[in-house]
Amino acid sequence: MNSDGRGVNWSARAARRTTRLRPSSIREILKLTQTGEVISFAGGLPAAELFPVAAVRAATDRVLTERGRAALQYSTTEGDAGLREWIAARHPQVGIDGVQVVSGSQQGLDLVAKCYLDPGDSVAVAAPTYPGALRSFEPYEVRFQPVKIDDDGIVPESLEAALAAGSTLIYVIPNFDNPTGASLSVERRHAVVELARAYGVPIIEDDPYGELRFDGAELPRLVDLAPDVVIHAGTFSKTLVPGFRLAWLVGSPAALDPVVRAKQAADLHTSTFTQFIALEIVRSGLLEEQVDKVRDHYRGRRDLMLDALDRELGDPALGFRWTRPSGGMFIWVSGPDSLDTTALARAAIAAGVAYVPGEAFYPEPGQVSGLRLSYSVASPDQIESGIARLGHILRQGT
Amino acid sequence: MNSDGRGVNWSARAARRTTRLRPSSIREILKLTQTGEVISFAGGLPAAELFPVAAVRAATDRVLTERGRAALQYSTTEGDAGLREWIAARHPQVGIDGVQVVSGSQQGLDLVAKCYLDPGDSVAVAAPTYPGALRSFEPYEVRFQPVKIDDDGIVPESLEAALAAGSTLIYVIPNFDNPTGASLSVERRHAVVELARAYGVPIIEDDPYGELRFDGAELPRLVDLAPDVVIHAGTFSKTLVPGFRLAWLVGSPAALDPVVRAKQAADLHTSTFTQFIALEIVRSGLLEEQVDKVRDHYRGRRDLMLDALDRELGDPALGFRWTRPSGGMFIWVSGPDSLDTTALARAAIAAGVAYVPGEAFYPEPGQVSGLRLSYSVASPDQIESGIARLGHILRQGT
Repeated sequence: MNSDGRGVNWSARAARRTTRLRPSSIREILKLTQTGEVISFAGGLPAAELFPVAAVRAATDRVLTERGRAALQYSTTEGDAGLREWIAARHPQVGIDGVQVVSGSQQGLDLVAKCYLDPGDSVAVAAPTYPGALRSFEPYEVRFQPVKIDDDGIVPESLEAALAAGSTLIYVIPNFDNPTGASLSVERRHAVVELARAYGVPIIEDDPYGELRFDGAELPRLVDLAPDVVIHAGTFSKTLVPGFRLAWLVGSPAALDPVVRAKQAADLHTSTFTQFIALEIVRSGLLEEQVDKVRDHYRGRRDLMLDALDRELGDPALGFRWTRPSGGMFIWVSGPDSLDTTALARAAIAAGVAYVPGEAFYPEPGQVSGLRLSYSVASPDQIESGIARLGHILRQGT
Repeated sequence: MNSDGRGVNWSARAARRTTRLRPSSIREILKLTQTGEVISFAGGLPAAELFPVAAVRAATDRVLTERGRAALQYSTTEGDAGLREWIAARHPQVGIDGVQVVSGSQQGLDLVAKCYLDPGDSVAVAAPTYPGALRSFEPYEVRFQPVKIDDDGIVPESLEAALAAGSTLIYVIPNFDNPTGASLSVERRHAVVELARAYGVPIIEDDPYGELRFDGAELPRLVDLAPDVVIHAGTFSKTLVPGFRLAWLVGSPAALDPVVRAKQAADLHTSTFTQFIALEIVRSGLLEEQVDKVRDHYRGRRDLMLDALDRELGDPALGFRWTRPSGGMFIWVSGPDSLDTTALARAAIAAGVAYVPGEAFYPEPGQVSGLRLSYSVASPDQIESGIARLGHILRQGT
């Protein structure tokens, strides 16, 4: 407002839901790590040195040569028909009408929340879970029902309790969960979709990491088991590149019916240009090659990090344990109850290593004995010395 | 649901706000025009033959050569610092902290609505106005206060009545309005921002067409007159290309404070790749050249369409009038009260010409004697014969 009291008092004018808009605590940590000699295991970024820059250039050249005007023009809200066909081909249970292109998985979560959450509703989420999902649901003025998660993913009995308590939406990361690295077992996949059916409650299956499997056999996607109750979110961000902001929702046409209208209201459509380039790349067969490359790279990094953790924190007397993910980008370390990873974070950064304190991943405050490590961007040397520094801090901190 | 009654009843599960999600009526008309020999003045697309395809290719090559990895990686929610600096330089009243990059103006409207509209609030909008804006506000369960608009833009007395009736947000397209083509006079610009100040109500200034001025002097932007009460939405969609989905909000840091958090929740950030390419293009100086080209092209088309309208509907006895826009893409034709442009639309398409019936642009049903013509994509021959067909239909239809 002006000094004469005229003008807009922006904070007084803000909608009630803005009180639920919390900044990302991870981003605050990332800012601290951008100075000095800090080895960061905090970010969840893919390894940029693996990006297929030359292939993107070649695909862009082809797109601009062959259909440049169309690539730069407005396009349909549902997404490019060719790209939707490619996505639909990966999900034989749904046709092209069950595919909605979105501007990153985060937008997919936001649109599903916008279409399926009223103020006061409660969402069943693993505790811990991906904070970006919590941030996408919160503006819709919802509550969370925490669901237990262990090495086999979310615990069906705990999910059932959340549903019995009235949750109207289930959020699951079935493969190589963020932050725990856990994958939902086959038995639990069946149990989870049956619970959803029994309670008539939709599932959002957020699956950014599913293709980055290092060990073991692929497990069925929830949407493929139960296309009647699941909206699946897939993305190019962890396999190809995140900078395109290109992802998709897959589900029954009935489930997506309000979503396409919400998408139109939200941003008309996703970039035609990046959709065309991505389609050119997947048609060239490069995506499989790229996924193999990323997978091999991350597998090696995971192995190094697990070895280093064994060395630094493997003494059972110390009371630490950590997950052994079969894919993805994250390891979850938990320590004795006396460990406060929030309190230790600054000391760790001062000692030259960064992680994300576990607290950031809980729908409610209070859980401070865990932390998330990412092995996706660190070099082998950084993993060696970073985990040594971390071990020192954690051993002192308990 | 399954036949046994288990499963998700998606429409019953849908959030209350989804009842406010209406599909775009313009898109339905556009679908009808995609078959056969219909000359379409319905779409609001820019002319694709003017797109700087070669410059986009050159800029993309430079971006991928010089900083390919960064261009394909995640980036900040606020937008690329270089691009934000370029935008801030066009608005000396605000610094870089007053710039938020968004994925198209439509997303800008959605984010402002999300941050500043509670259920039951009312938005002051011109009647007629841009339907995409109505679609972006509606999911927030708001009402509309219609504001009169004439050849000098929205009428301040009518806006004041809307504010007195309790509107808490003002939506304005100050330059070459969609659909009327009208521009807000300088006097009214001052009056409008003073009303906003007096009532303490924010303005969204949606300005996609401001640079496409054919005649007369540039008028001050509302945000430059009153950065304390205005959030301005600018875009590359009508000057460079729409397929990048690249636009920006400009306002005071206080105004944008919740917007950046809403953006993070909505889609993390806008495509790094398209931001880098656009920045490369604006730095090369090509944008000015491109704007000149687009402006000259559209000016010629406008002149042809106005001449054709004079010929076909100029007889005062017919009771038609139309706007004479000094820029932008649209002419608004209004006929005698007996004209029903909704009823005539199918006959017009059958006769080989399409327009958007005026009804689509009103916040409430009922106004059917106007229609919108776009001259941006039609060729000179199409304008000649299309307006002849339209004249025939309209003369018969009154």
